[in-house]
Amino acid sequence: MNILIINSGSSSLKYQLFNMPEKAPVCSGLVERIGIEGSFIKHTVYRNNEKHIIEQSGFIANHGEGLKQVLALLTEGEYAVIASPDDIAAVGHRVVHGGEHFTGATLITDEVKHQIKKLFSLAPLHNPVNYKCIEVAEQTFENAKQIAVFDTAFHQTIPEQAYRYAIPEWYYKEHGIRVYGFHGTSHKYVSEQANKWLNKVDTKIISIHLGNGCSITAIKNGKSIDTSMGFGPLSGLMMGTRSGDIDPSVIFHLMEHSGYTLEQLSTLVNKQSGLLGVGGSSDMRDIRKMVSEGNVAAILALKLYAYRIKKFIGAYAAILNGIDAIIFTAGVGENDSNMRESVCSELNYLGIELDPNQNTAYNGELKEINKASAKVKILVIPTNEEYEIAHQCFELLS
Amino acid sequence: MNILIINSGSSSLKYQLFNMPEKAPVCSGLVERIGIEGSFIKHTVYRNNEKHIIEQSGFIANHGEGLKQVLALLTEGEYAVIASPDDIAAVGHRVVHGGEHFTGATLITDEVKHQIKKLFSLAPLHNPVNYKCIEVAEQTFENAKQIAVFDTAFHQTIPEQAYRYAIPEWYYKEHGIRVYGFHGTSHKYVSEQANKWLNKVDTKIISIHLGNGCSITAIKNGKSIDTSMGFGPLSGLMMGTRSGDIDPSVIFHLMEHSGYTLEQLSTLVNKQSGLLGVGGSSDMRDIRKMVSEGNVAAILALKLYAYRIKKFIGAYAAILNGIDAIIFTAGVGENDSNMRESVCSELNYLGIELDPNQNTAYNGELKEINKASAKVKILVIPTNEEYEIAHQCFELLS
Repeated sequence: MNILIINSGSSSLKYQLFNMPEKAPVCSGLVERIGIEGSFIKHTVYRNNEKHIIEQSGFIANHGEGLKQVLALLTEGEYAVIASPDDIAAVGHRVVHGGEHFTGATLITDEVKHQIKKLFSLAPLHNPVNYKCIEVAEQTFENAKQIAVFDTAFHQTIPEQAYRYAIPEWYYKEHGIRVYGFHGTSHKYVSEQANKWLNKVDTKIISIHLGNGCSITAIKNGKSIDTSMGFGPLSGLMMGTRSGDIDPSVIFHLMEHSGYTLEQLSTLVNKQSGLLGVGGSSDMRDIRKMVSEGNVAAILALKLYAYRIKKFIGAYAAILNGIDAIIFTAGVGENDSNMRESVCSELNYLGIELDPNQNTAYNGELKEINKASAKVKILVIPTNEEYEIAHQCFELLS
Repeated sequence: MNILIINSGSSSLKYQLFNMPEKAPVCSGLVERIGIEGSFIKHTVYRNNEKHIIEQSGFIANHGEGLKQVLALLTEGEYAVIASPDDIAAVGHRVVHGGEHFTGATLITDEVKHQIKKLFSLAPLHNPVNYKCIEVAEQTFENAKQIAVFDTAFHQTIPEQAYRYAIPEWYYKEHGIRVYGFHGTSHKYVSEQANKWLNKVDTKIISIHLGNGCSITAIKNGKSIDTSMGFGPLSGLMMGTRSGDIDPSVIFHLMEHSGYTLEQLSTLVNKQSGLLGVGGSSDMRDIRKMVSEGNVAAILALKLYAYRIKKFIGAYAAILNGIDAIIFTAGVGENDSNMRESVCSELNYLGIELDPNQNTAYNGELKEINKASAKVKILVIPTNEEYEIAHQCFELLS
């Protein structure tokens, strides 16, 4: 069964085609700079253990035009992977915000589209473009089922004491102010992999997703019970450009005493902070390079980054009252062994003890990197959100 | 040596007179509703194990007038405790914000006053009135030493990774944006009491101050290394009327999409939230009463309140990599055994195990309430900020 996964951003469209239930994608690609000068597509076909890369440039005005070009790449020429759009059984859409309404993969109907639209104000940067791509895909793949998989869905099991803020109920009822959490697809995927590895389901797991966005989730018996991102994808851990947790008094103070506008402050904490704001680059590899050159700001950035993860591990150890495993995943989590070492250092009180040799020997597949004698497993697990979305679509249709 | 302690609020002035080094105060009192209709003074003299209470009413226009009336109560009539203002060797002022400048009790000079003034914008509700009371006390007690003891001072040992927010350095250097922490005098006092009880100084302690304001501090070898209040006294734990931690995205969202003003939102999270906002009263005793009547909102308020304390205990267990003792102090911490039980439940992974009988048997003096076999001591310690200020003044002058 061919399932096409679409992950859309404001000026980009990522896609992967799976022939489910096979885990390896048939092809994948990226449409970049949509509506901006310098648009291009990079399309990769995987065949006989080889990668065939096709690159196209030329202005792409909107997501609809981008998807049409993707369809041509899928169906035409030597590296065609399907004969016609009707060979696609389903299109799986990553939708950032599902509010309280959506708790799992959902077949898209007019009612579902209406609900996604109602959530625009909660995710103004993401849901409108996700919505647009659903409409575009409905036109491009007329006979495919359209399915939405929400970033927030996995966190809908979080109990009230964790999802409510300590403000009057009215703001929750009227304005939807609560913790939603994000990266749910990733946390779900890696925690299920961990459960398989541990060979049980009644587990206490802390999943640490460190990409450009970062979040950490406490998972009990396969269910999310708390997560570091909150109402929006800003709070919690320090990220590439986002500050993570910051006292709202800072916002009030800078507006009141220094004349900053709302927009400036939102830009500050969302786009100019985190690794970029403290260390000078949002890319951990750049930060590592600067650290090796003795750059003091970069050293501080790493310290802040690791320190906050440590605190969340402790907080979640408390609410889980135990830990079977912690998981590192996503770009930094999978590739930065030094960060894993910093995070795990001096946590033996919690049963966390890293094996430095196992840690540096990670090679891209699930790996246990704790000391053999340690109480808590430390796992590095490559995340695979696209496959997880395809898997959820496949399950829904089966 | 007579030391008068002054703790001033915007419309109030609390005081205690100590004959140091004696721990019991000679007298204490409260001037309320300064500048507001219905002003009154309640003055209590402690003599031969008896309390003598004098109550006065009549409009008090300002803090200066209030302090003059206090002086009269100290020096005149049957319950006079001193003969003249010159019998006061020192006046110890609780000053909320000492910024990065003040790390301990400080003899007030013109330069010190200038520094306190410079911190007005960081503590606009507190430092100006503290400053005014210093000037008033200089006039009223001309020959006394004036000493400032800062709420922030104890937290000046917090390392950079804990006091810096993940925003560009410029905001720290130019605007003083960092974690300052508050309730320092209380955390210092009770943690020193705990060290005495444990009979060592190289300890790992988590001090939980639950009053109308609430904060929690990680203390290593007698030094604060992290604390839950941040730039202002808003963040961290849920409090009487303050929300504690809340995703700043909520602020941005309500301003942008629902037209709230900065002032409304500041009022919301500082004065209409916490126990009051969620449960209907800022007083834990009211909340308990409502819970006993099955009030759902009050039950949720208690859950949120305890849950957040649990998470901070875990976070601090992680950064301390161990716990020798946790301390409950201040109004709720000392008096609400149910809250202590909720907080300590299901934390045995961290070595925390409460003895229910010891817990309910607390009678106002330092008490150990953990199970005898538990790894971590759980202590209830009555805080005494006024005595601690007097003690610091006495040490400074000795």
